[in-house]
Amino acid sequence: MTRWVFERQELVRFGHCDPAGIVFYPRYFEMLNALVEDWFTQGLGVDYAQLLGPRRVGMPSVRLSADFKRVSRMGDQLTQRLAINKLGRSSLGLTIQFDAPDGCRVSFEQVLVCTSLETHRAQPFPADLRAALEQANDKQE
Amino acid sequence: MTRWVFERQELVRFGHCDPAGIVFYPRYFEMLNALVEDWFTQGLGVDYAQLLGPRRVGMPSVRLSADFKRVSRMGDQLTQRLAINKLGRSSLGLTIQFDAPDGCRVSFEQVLVCTSLETHRAQPFPADLRAALEQANDKQE
Amino acid sequence: MTRWVFERQELVRFGHCDPAGIVFYPRYFEMLNALVEDWFTQGLGVDYAQLLGPRRVGMPSVRLSADFKRVSRMGDQLTQRLAINKLGRSSLGLTIQFDAPDGCRVSFEQVLVCTSLETHRAQPFPADLRAALEQANDKQE
Amino acid sequence: MTRWVFERQELVRFGHCDPAGIVFYPRYFEMLNALVEDWFTQGLGVDYAQLLGPRRVGMPSVRLSADFKRVSRMGDQLTQRLAINKLGRSSLGLTIQFDAPDGCRVSFEQVLVCTSLETHRAQPFPADLRAALEQANDKQE
Repeated sequence: MTRWVFERQELVRFGHCDPAGIVFYPRYFEMLNALVEDWFTQGLGVDYAQLLGPRRVGMPSVRLSADFKRVSRMGDQLTQRLAINKLGRSSLGLTIQFDAPDGCRVSFEQVLVCTSLETHRAQPFPADLRAALEQANDKQE
Repeated sequence: MTRWVFERQELVRFGHCDPAGIVFYPRYFEMLNALVEDWFTQGLGVDYAQLLGPRRVGMPSVRLSADFKRVSRMGDQLTQRLAINKLGRSSLGLTIQFDAPDGCRVSFEQVLVCTSLETHRAQPFPADLRAALEQANDKQE
Repeated sequence: MTRWVFERQELVRFGHCDPAGIVFYPRYFEMLNALVEDWFTQGLGVDYAQLLGPRRVGMPSVRLSADFKRVSRMGDQLTQRLAINKLGRSSLGLTIQFDAPDGCRVSFEQVLVCTSLETHRAQPFPADLRAALEQANDKQE
Repeated sequence: MTRWVFERQELVRFGHCDPAGIVFYPRYFEMLNALVEDWFTQGLGVDYAQLLGPRRVGMPSVRLSADFKRVSRMGDQLTQRLAINKLGRSSLGLTIQFDAPDGCRVSFEQVLVCTSLETHRAQPFPADLRAALEQANDKQE
């Protein structure tokens, strides 16, 4: 069973939706990035804006997949949950779900990699991020 | 070897890029949707705006995966190519690549399903779209 | 002096920012629309998603101006405030500010008009919205 | 009478539109930024991506107003036109219109200012940009 390490709520807004009245899928990926941001800052205690700004550490996606299971409409409240499925030296595998009372709306598998924003090359996680990720991963297991 | 059925160019713009100076990945999915739109209208001869507007036929994604292989920067010209990998009665599997002179930047696998925009339920492709998809698929093989 | 009728906080996110490291201005307008949404639902007690969804009442902008006074960076917390500057039978003038500790970042003047989403023509505010707007406007003065 | 210095076409896409079936106004501002980009690169011969990337010259908006005159729907083709209304040492006033066969959809007044992306402070236009802007402005008058 998936052990979630972070959770937040997000309202489906007018601007997320398309002429079909449902979420335009690129907007789900904007939500996904915001979820990871909030997890870093609030959950892991590593300020995301500091990390990608002054510290020049990147966290780009190298692989991402999404299963769109049910439509989401304007006004829906999504419960967004995140779990670690793999923790490497410089890469991080995540399982994410956006849920609503009728069940899962979308599930994602995402692989992020830690990079230098000077070179865009992979590098090991900085020590504080590594420690926070290990702690989250241990608590999970 | 992949047999492409449609191709277009897209410039990576300022607004596609993030503070790291590279494409923010949700923008790649906006590009992907625009590519499918242009393929329908220009390649298949089935006007996408008519289809999703007055004809009330939806084409939502049910599954989508992306491999981010190289970064893209503002000013890069992407060659976006699309191939059919599976054609069902109401579903369509696509392989897509965004390429640049240094190689593939992102590749996608996408499964679209034909729906009614009244019910958001799957339905067979309308006859004109089905015929155009079969013709594209035959030419490809 | 401006008398604010609604206020909320919003974090400037990675996805709001451009390669210059500051908010890409179209994102400010996404924030603005979300602010108006929250004001309707939370402040006025008229559910925005219900209004623009099932009730088919539109609230498009007819005029909008923005003064960009200071740059906003990723990680900044914006205090977003909204005041009514004119209340007509079917139109609504708003003054909005996005503030931070160093002062105002952006100010907006926006005129919204109430429309039917069937015809996109102007129509008087529905009774519940009109009453809520009048109450907010009175409290303000 | 307005003397246009640049013009391009843009298709209103599915992803530009909201549940009301019309352009969500923040998307108009994304189009506006892309128009200015294309004008710089194609019209003025000053590569926008080079300017804001390696050359570290910013062109942020300091003031922007928009009049939304007619709705735009998915599939509409917009003719986007741009004129210079004021050329200063470091600031540039533009008049922009997005037109369709039924008339003007949106008109904008925009003031851009030339900045250093190191300091975000105003600076005079670089020589090549200044020369290109003066030439465009003369041709116009």
